[in-house]
Order: sequence, then structure tokens, then C-alpha cells
Amino acid sequence: MILAQRRLCSLGTREKFLKRICSSKLLGFSTSAKMALKFKNASRIKGLDSNVWIEFTKLAADPSVVNLGQGLPDISPPTYVKEELSKVALTDNLNQYTRGFGHPSLVKALSSLYEKFYQNKINPDKEILVTVGAYGSLFNAIQGLIDPGDEVIIMVPFYDCYEPMVRMAGATPVFIPLRSRHTDGTKWSSSDWTLDPQELASKFNSKTKAIILNTPHNPIGKVYSEEELRLIADLCIKHDTLCISDEVYEWLVYTGNKHVKIATFPGMWDRTVTIGSAGKTYSVTGWKLGWSIGPNHLIKHLQTVQQNTVYTCATPLQEALAQAFWIDIKRMGDPECYFNSLPKELEAKRDRMVDLLESVGLRPIVPDGGYFIIANVSSLDADLSDMKSDDPYDYKFVKWMTKNKKLSAIPVSAFCNSETKAQFEKFVRFCFIKKDSTLDAAEEIIKAWSRQKS
Amino acid sequence: MILAQRRLCSLGTREKFLKRICSSKLLGFSTSAKMALKFKNASRIKGLDSNVWIEFTKLAADPSVVNLGQGLPDISPPTYVKEELSKVALTDNLNQYTRGFGHPSLVKALSSLYEKFYQNKINPDKEILVTVGAYGSLFNAIQGLIDPGDEVIIMVPFYDCYEPMVRMAGATPVFIPLRSRHTDGTKWSSSDWTLDPQELASKFNSKTKAIILNTPHNPIGKVYSEEELRLIADLCIKHDTLCISDEVYEWLVYTGNKHVKIATFPGMWDRTVTIGSAGKTYSVTGWKLGWSIGPNHLIKHLQTVQQNTVYTCATPLQEALAQAFWIDIKRMGDPECYFNSLPKELEAKRDRMVDLLESVGLRPIVPDGGYFIIANVSSLDADLSDMKSDDPYDYKFVKWMTKNKKLSAIPVSAFCNSETKAQFEKFVRFCFIKKDSTLDAAEEIIKAWSRQKS
Repeated sequence: MILAQRRLCSLGTREKFLKRICSSKLLGFSTSAKMALKFKNASRIKGLDSNVWIEFTKLAADPSVVNLGQGLPDISPPTYVKEELSKVALTDNLNQYTRGFGHPSLVKALSSLYEKFYQNKINPDKEILVTVGAYGSLFNAIQGLIDPGDEVIIMVPFYDCYEPMVRMAGATPVFIPLRSRHTDGTKWSSSDWTLDPQELASKFNSKTKAIILNTPHNPIGKVYSEEELRLIADLCIKHDTLCISDEVYEWLVYTGNKHVKIATFPGMWDRTVTIGSAGKTYSVTGWKLGWSIGPNHLIKHLQTVQQNTVYTCATPLQEALAQAFWIDIKRMGDPECYFNSLPKELEAKRDRMVDLLESVGLRPIVPDGGYFIIANVSSLDADLSDMKSDDPYDYKFVKWMTKNKKLSAIPVSAFCNSETKAQFEKFVRFCFIKKDSTLDAAEEIIKAWSRQKS
Repeated sequence: MILAQRRLCSLGTREKFLKRICSSKLLGFSTSAKMALKFKNASRIKGLDSNVWIEFTKLAADPSVVNLGQGLPDISPPTYVKEELSKVALTDNLNQYTRGFGHPSLVKALSSLYEKFYQNKINPDKEILVTVGAYGSLFNAIQGLIDPGDEVIIMVPFYDCYEPMVRMAGATPVFIPLRSRHTDGTKWSSSDWTLDPQELASKFNSKTKAIILNTPHNPIGKVYSEEELRLIADLCIKHDTLCISDEVYEWLVYTGNKHVKIATFPGMWDRTVTIGSAGKTYSVTGWKLGWSIGPNHLIKHLQTVQQNTVYTCATPLQEALAQAFWIDIKRMGDPECYFNSLPKELEAKRDRMVDLLESVGLRPIVPDGGYFIIANVSSLDADLSDMKSDDPYDYKFVKWMTKNKKLSAIPVSAFCNSETKAQFEKFVRFCFIKKDSTLDAAEEIIKAWSRQKS
């Protein structure tokens, strides 16, 4: 109300006709109690306003902080990717609307790329939808397919938007944690984290509409094996359940591991929406382009959501991405193909991060894929007594570390539902798709900290 | 099921382990009746799958067609706008994620630009949200503020997404038609189309959560006068109703008219979300950037929707747009400022379209703003007997014209609810933000057609 009054007055002095209303209409102003009711959020977003990225991105914005937080590459994207966009920007008609479900040259490139893996033709118009990032694909899939009352199975930890997206659709998320196998005390790998088959089976019932799979997994870095995927696929088929498979890190798989698409399992194409990302594929997270691939009987519902939410994605970015894809599609066997060169580059960075974390006495979970590494940080004995909030340990730890050590990360409990936060609150996630100079700076901080301690 | 079998087999021949599942799991396959149920759309999008743009954009894709359909400029966007994007594309960190609610330099530019009109500071972080086009702003506002059971007033004709977006939120659209005043038979202007004050008042009740305003109006080109806006504002205040004000054509207002923001009326800032568009402002519809401006107690709910749908918008486009805005903010009084030069350029095109349509005996409604002109085409006596569909007259007419005359437009009944389609089905909408050569080609077609007739 104070704001309204302030504006009223400044406007009232500006123009005569406004002045007149200013005096006559003030009496008609509704009470603030009534206003508060009308101005409140729609019930579908109740309680969905907190967000780890917003909180921690703000913290890490201080330029003196070494940011290993958000999954944001500071390495250069491939030169040809940037140059394609730079060229496309100068072409008049590529700055105008394109086809709503995906720019024609992009869906053609995606179909050509992915049919190598599905070993079948993919209809670029009917079986692909280009979206505003993989985020947009997840949203379209959930809004297009999930009804209030449905249940959706989510594996913990999980990329944080899965839960609010399911809740925004009025459905119930059903959580199952990945649990660590007993290990011999030396290396601890992301493959040590598995689902208990009986526990997983117990989560399925007649209300289960979908399961959300994420492989390679964020934040653990787990690459699901064929056997693990088969278990999930069997349950999906037995219970007639959809699978939303978030495969944004599909190319980022390290030596000894192989990314397998659950949609290629018998009976799974028909029930799976597979999601990919330009940001993760080409280290251009700011392009916000993703895609969903699946049978038309599912994709058409995602398309309906898209046409009633954003209608279409940015044309210049789509055209530039299509051109980049054609360059790499033609050299997929070559080491310089970005799908091969990036994981090689990242594997060295992963190994460096493992060594660094181990050198200060931490025991990281070595990721088989993706560009994150998580570690239990409780042995660092940070003095968090000044951190006064009711936050979980890892939230306080990251805030403390960002402030006192000028190093940022992401708390892993942000990827947990409220019941499992305690299980993961000693872990933090570091992002390693970073320039050597950034990793050098992180190394210096961590080593100095360790020396201080000892 | 046939598709599933096809894929099963080809995959089965590829890898041994798949072969094994191929034989063992086929028996576990669910029945198609059961599958059909699980694969159907969520109820929120039921009946929302048809879309005029998808249907008519496909039709007009034939390169031999002169396309005056979709609101898609074929004039060049300003050189500096394209060049900014071309430059930004080459800067590494501008290809990565930015702040979710709007790139810092862009919200700063928007705040600086718009506070000239609101005559008050606009908080760039709390009172602005950058979205995926104005479409994204409309969606965020409706999903963030409108609950099932609410009523939302929409003026007919309306930009076609308003109705499905309101329905997707589970709310009820309440329609009120713009009606034409009796005119003297010479010029027919968009300002002759008005709301009946009694009729408008009768649409408000205790369930009315919001009214969607669109000024300058698409498709009629009406620029709402201060008096008309005051009527709407009074009713909003009296009934404590929100206003979603779609002002994407705000700069495109012709001689003798002035765009007024309803949010600047006393008591309206607090209850209004005002929506703008980069695509319409800079003739780059393919950039898909828009924004919502309003009080934080409303914008924060739109932000919550954004963080659970797309999270953030493309960084390079946002940075380039910010740079373009700074260029024009510094020269707002100058004729070469794009906010001034574009409407001048378009006014000449509007006049040309008026003359052309009148020269063949049509009576267009002369728009005061925007870049569309609508005309009743029934006097052209097109022989639509070959058009076999149950479509309204204008749908059949446009399909016939596209096919037989190689000229495309958009049927105005696409902008109507089912009850008012009959009122507008003799009108079609032509877009005139087109190069002279495109308008020449349209002129040739229309004049030849007229000669043929006479």
C-alpha cells in the first residue's frame, strides 16, 4: 500500500487527468487484507519458491570466489560453436520465429545423430521436441503426462528440479535412495552407489505414472549399467510405467564405462522420453536448448505443453547448434569430435580433483560420468558455530567455505527430499568443468586450508 | 505396438544381451488397452492441442507463397542488434548460464528504460522478470497467479494463447467482445471498436481474478485510450482484480495515438503485470525474449514459476539485447532511435496496405498500432466450394487463398472463443512488417485477382 501511495502521488503530479482520479479513486481502494488474498500465489506453486541455484549463485557472484558450484563450464566452448552463432546472428531470417516444435535444420540433425544409437529412424517432426534447455523438456514431459494423484518415482539424490516439477503437476514424488555398497576402503566409486532391487520394486504400484532416471547421474556421477537399467525397464514394463530419462551428460562418460539408453531396451521406446542438452553437449549452458526424443504418442503431449507455454525456442541458437552438430556428426569416430574430446579433457580434470581431495584426507566418490565430484567434508572440521541458520550441515559448510575460504560448491542435501537430507548433508558437490587456472586456484585454497589445519 | 516390435527386433539383432531380453520380456508386455491409458495426456492439456500458428505456418512454408500471415518481420532487424549478438557469441562466459530471473545487464537496462514511463524507480531484481518471449511472461503470470475456479476476463478477439493458457491453469475464461461503433461509411478505424461499459462491468464478480488487456491490440490494432483504460482500471480496483497487460506492440503506435500503460494509473501498479517483448521491440521475433514488470508481491510468483519451468533464459541473447537497449535509451528523443524510426517506417506500410485493400473494394479496419490490418474479405467472393472442411469461413478462405493465390494471412476467428467465431469469421489478418518487395508481390496478387473478378 505504501508503494501504491507513493506511485499515486508522483503520477498525480504529472498529469491532470491522473490527478483527478488520484483524489476520487483513493476512496475506492480495496483494503490491504483483501488485496493480500488476491495477490497471493496460485496454489500449484505453494512452497516451491526456494531454489538452491538462486541462493548459491548469488553467494558465488563475488569475483574473488573460486566457483566450483553451479555446473557452469569456464572452459571455452568449441570455437566453431561460437563462430556458428556469430555468423547466424547476421542473417536476417534466422533472427525470426521458426517452427514451434524445433527448427527444421536442428530436428533433422538430432534425428540423424540419435538414430545411430536407436538403430531406427527417428521422425524429426513427430518424435523430437526442441525445448528451453533440458529443464524445459522435463517440465513439458511432467506437465504433459502427469496428473494430480499420480505417483512419480525419483532416485535420491536427484537433480533438484524434479521434486518441485512433480509437485507443481499435483502429483506425489516417491523417493528411493541410492545406497553405497560396502567398499574396501581404498577407492570409492559412483558405481558403488546402487538401488536395492526389492526396495525399488516396492515403490511401484497402480498409481505409478512414471519414473525419472538420470544417467550419467548428477550429483553422484553414476553411469547406470545395463543390468541396472534392465531392472528398471522390467519394472516399468511390468507396471506399465513411463520413464523420463534425463541423459544430459550422455557424452561425458569416462574410461571403462558406457552410456546406455534405456529407450533402446525392448518395450521401452514406447514408454520413454529421453532428454538431452545443448548446454552439456557443447559446454554452452547459456544457450538454454534441450530436446526430448520419444514416440509420437508421448512427444505430442509435450508439444501441446510447449505450444501453450513458450511456443518456440530461439532461432539463431537452434540454427547454430544444428550447424555444430553437422560438423561433429561427420567425424564421430575421430578423437577431435567434441563428443570424444570433451570427455577425454574432463577425465584428466576428474583425476586431478580426486587426487586433490584425497591429498587433504577426503574420500571423494569417483564419478564415472558427468562433471561433478562429491565428497564427505565433515573431516575438514570446519568451525560452523558462526553459521546461525537452521540449514543442513552442508548448506552451512558451503556458505562458510565461500565466505572464509573463497571457494564455492553446492550442498548435496539440495538434491534430497526432506526425509533423506540427513543422509547426504555431509557431502558437497564440486564442479570440475573448469580451466586449469581455476583448478589451480582451488588447489591452492584447499592445500593452504589443509596446512593450516595440521 | 507395431513400432515397439519393430524396434525390439532391430535392437535384438544388435546385441546379445538385448536379444535375451527380447525373447524373455515380450511376454511381460502390457496390453495395448492398458498402455493407451498410461500414455494419454495429462488432463490439464485436454483439448488444447490445436494451434493456428502450427497449422498456418506449415501452409505458408511453401516458398512460392507471399506470407502476410504470422507476425514475422521480413524487414532487416537493426544492424547493431544483429552485430551485438554476433560479438557476444564470441565471448566465452556470455555463452554460460546467467541469473535465472534475468541477466543482470538486461534487467538494469529494462529498469532504466521503463522508469521513464512509470516515473518511479523499478527494482531490476525484484520487479522485473525476463522470460522466454512475452508468451513465457503470459504463461508465468497465469500459472503463478491463477487457480482452478478463478475467472479471467478476455476481450475478443484476443491473441490466441490467452484462452488455452487460462484453461491449462484450470480457470474459466470469461469473454467480452469488442464491438464496432456505427461509422459514416468512409474510414473504419480500430478506435471504432470499443467495449460496452455496462457489458464489461457485468463480467466482473467475486471469482474474477484477473483481466487480460492487450494494447496496442492484436489483431485489431486498437490503441486503448486513457478513458477506456480508466474504465478498466476502475473495475479492477472496485473488484480487487489483477490486470495482465500485454503491451508487446507498445512502440508501434501511429500518428495521433499514444500508448498509455494501465499500470501508471492510480492503484494499478500494485495489481498489474505489464508484459513486453524483444521480438516486437527490435524486429527479432526469433530471439524469444520477453519481460514482466510489476510489484514484487506479484513478480515473485512469476519468478517461482520460471524457476520450476525453464529456470533461466539464453545468456547471449539477453546480453545482446541489453547492449541494444543502451544504444536506444541514450537517444530516445532522436528520430533514429528505433523506438521512433520503426513506427514511422511501419506507418507508411500501414497506409500502403489500407490503400491496396481499399483499391480492390475491401474496407479494412485501419489500425492505430501494431503491425496487422484486418479486413472483411467476403466481398472477394472466393469460391470455397472445394474446401471441404467444417472450418469457419476465414479458415477456408485463407487456405484457399494460400493455395490458389499464393498469398497467406491468418483467419481472425482463430482469435475468438467458440461463441464469437461467427462474429469475426469473415475477417482475415494481414501482417505488414514486410519489405517493400514483399508488399509489391502481395499487391500484384491482389490487383490481378481483382482484375480477374471484374
